Amino acid sequence: MRVDVGNALDSVARPGVPRDALDGLDERVASAHAHIQRERRAGTAGYRALDLPETTDVAAIEDAVAPFRDAEAVLTVGIGGSALGARALVTALEGTDRVPVYTLETVDPDHVARLLADLPLAETAVNVVSRSGETAETLANFRAVRGAMADAGVDWTERTFVTTGETGRLRDLAEQHGLPVLDVPPGVPGRFSVLSAVGLAAASLRGHDVDAVLDGAAGVELQGSLFDCPPYAYGAVTYELARRGATSNVMMPYAESLAPFTEWFAQLWAESLGKAETGQTPLKARGVVDQHSQLQLYRSGPRDKVVTLLRPVERAAEAPGGVALGDHVDAAFRATEASLAVAERPTIRVEIERVSARHVGGLLYGMEAACILAGELFEVDPFTQPAVEWGKRAAQSLVEGDGLPEETPRGDSLAVETDSPTDSG
Amino acid sequence: MRVDVGNALDSVARPGVPRDALDGLDERVASAHAHIQRERRAGTAGYRALDLPETTDVAAIEDAVAPFRDAEAVLTVGIGGSALGARALVTALEGTDRVPVYTLETVDPDHVARLLADLPLAETAVNVVSRSGETAETLANFRAVRGAMADAGVDWTERTFVTTGETGRLRDLAEQHGLPVLDVPPGVPGRFSVLSAVGLAAASLRGHDVDAVLDGAAGVELQGSLFDCPPYAYGAVTYELARRGATSNVMMPYAESLAPFTEWFAQLWAESLGKAETGQTPLKARGVVDQHSQLQLYRSGPRDKVVTLLRPVERAAEAPGGVALGDHVDAAFRATEASLAVAERPTIRVEIERVSARHVGGLLYGMEAACILAGELFEVDPFTQPAVEWGKRAAQSLVEGDGLPEETPRGDSLAVETDSPTDSG
Repeated sequence: MRVDVGNALDSVARPGVPRDALDGLDERVASAHAHIQRERRAGTAGYRALDLPETTDVAAIEDAVAPFRDAEAVLTVGIGGSALGARALVTALEGTDRVPVYTLETVDPDHVARLLADLPLAETAVNVVSRSGETAETLANFRAVRGAMADAGVDWTERTFVTTGETGRLRDLAEQHGLPVLDVPPGVPGRFSVLSAVGLAAASLRGHDVDAVLDGAAGVELQGSLFDCPPYAYGAVTYELARRGATSNVMMPYAESLAPFTEWFAQLWAESLGKAETGQTPLKARGVVDQHSQLQLYRSGPRDKVVTLLRPVERAAEAPGGVALGDHVDAAFRATEASLAVAERPTIRVEIERVSARHVGGLLYGMEAACILAGELFEVDPFTQPAVEWGKRAAQSLVEGDGLPEETPRGDSLAVETDSPTDSG
Repeated sequence: MRVDVGNALDSVARPGVPRDALDGLDERVASAHAHIQRERRAGTAGYRALDLPETTDVAAIEDAVAPFRDAEAVLTVGIGGSALGARALVTALEGTDRVPVYTLETVDPDHVARLLADLPLAETAVNVVSRSGETAETLANFRAVRGAMADAGVDWTERTFVTTGETGRLRDLAEQHGLPVLDVPPGVPGRFSVLSAVGLAAASLRGHDVDAVLDGAAGVELQGSLFDCPPYAYGAVTYELARRGATSNVMMPYAESLAPFTEWFAQLWAESLGKAETGQTPLKARGVVDQHSQLQLYRSGPRDKVVTLLRPVERAAEAPGGVALGDHVDAAFRATEASLAVAERPTIRVEIERVSARHVGGLLYGMEAACILAGELFEVDPFTQPAVEWGKRAAQSLVEGDGLPEETPRGDSLAVETDSPTDSG
């Protein structure tokens, strides 16, 4: 992993970090790093995320997925941190998202009905993932899967394994039916658990080298200076830019197989740092494509963004159909970086050697470390998400027919409507 | 289409629009509308987008796609406005993105190689779309498609139709080989052309009712008051919120088949309004899913966002696998809206009757009108994208081996690297 912050300095960009402000920032990095290491040694929940590459039990994952290795399709039932890491990893390793690996996240009934109708249910491995074992959407979707399997004459207990915490409804159900169970690492929020069974089971089931993923992560050494540690360089400079007005952070990979990685990153960055009216808003972008969609805004809109340009240095294919597309994508990468510099907009270049198990493992770990460091600098707890609890309770109340909580503002609706169409089209 | 801005007022939210500021805003809407109508009558390029539902030649589209109706797969070769509208529409109408309709946008060689290897090339209909007929990525990808077809012994001239402007390399090529050609409406930028052949050809090829799409668009009447016209209510209130600090606009549909719509919307909003250091940054979100990823930030991060909550009132499926998921998704929608109101964060509710050809046509047209109105209020030209030209020229120069333009800042790189791994993993 290589992080170049040269184009985020104020010699290039506005906002930009003055070269001599980096020394003061680095002092804060040193003390934040010392704090992170103390918490890791104390085994404080959350910070254990940084120990995952060493503490993850690969043999347990391989045992749990062994009965399903012949599955034609893999279906993860989970939402948020229970799904995004697994998808980011498996797509990066497969090289594409057009593989028989699916996720049931939303409870949109049209979507769920279509997916269940399309899946070869008798040949599908289902992995139900919920840390609490109580996630409403996941339990509802799991009931829908069981119902669809029952309708199709498939024994769901033969097709399902679960990944969950030590207690909860999902754990109880698994024990009742003798399902294989994988453990969610205690105290580690979903968005920091990609390097555990939560993120690795689907990749293992698909035959990928999860040991290499973990080795790549373990190879990222954290050191107490942003000048020596790429993840800290990334976390510290994005923080400093946010403080100076770059309140949004565009994650723009120049590799299509990293598109789901941006969704994983977006949760990591948003949910960890977005609290106490601070944080930095992640924007998901796609290299080359968004040059024709978002670049106008990045280059000429409000000066409130840093653009992270991410690329693998090497690619497997060079010339599909005999056309040297590798030259085009590299030209697009460099031209976009230069075009933002000419417009005095800050960018950070992040490079990995190639999109392989090892280097993707390093990237995922590096971004988690960057985020935890940024949390220290923003002075927020990156491991909580208190603002979502109210909505979960309200949704539960609505599903049970009890209406919205009393404290909901009863503002007047101010609705503007077109005339209703006379037909049913 | 129904737009409710009640939760964007300052009686609920900060930032919020004071009820009595709406009258002054409405005066600006009236004069902006008058200007828009004058430009439409004058036939000014760009504004013609609003006439598309009436001026689009459906018979020409049907003629061009007729030879390909038996195709097993459809491949659009195009980028930005040449691709996003077609995908948004076809996914909404199919109800899912898991259909044999593909897009080649990026020039990532790994991605292109895999897609070309997977496609049944002899049974694939290829639609090459470029307004200028000169888009570098599209021409390169088209060359790769032709190369792959030649390698597979497939006559590409039998499998291809093009959609382009009156002149340019693509037009020349089509004439040379006698390919069916569809016209891009003159003067209308790609992001405003979904209701022309650019956006409709793939849907027509898949057998959808494009007349209903156009009827739905034509049924959206533009009137000079935000109190009478849902698109203008949306455009005016998002503008007013941006002015008061909501510099980001989250588009969050509660229907999985509208996920690609958010990409179309993001281009529309970013590229049209993001200029002269103003505009509003679009964020793509997905209903229910992002409650478990982004809601923490929306509810508790910086007060710089308005959240657009979009839903269809009716859904086709109610209870997949016997589980009433419709109740869950409606509860999630209302709970999220309420939870943001309790946190005093502005939201706008947008509802369409259902995700059908007619109502999606109305939604696409309504958002284009909203964006054009917002352009008038921001006092920017929504139909240009001058900031991307520099990068296009620079990329061309790099591909041709001429290096970056001289004006590129030569800032010192400030790179932080991990030790190179010793293996090749």
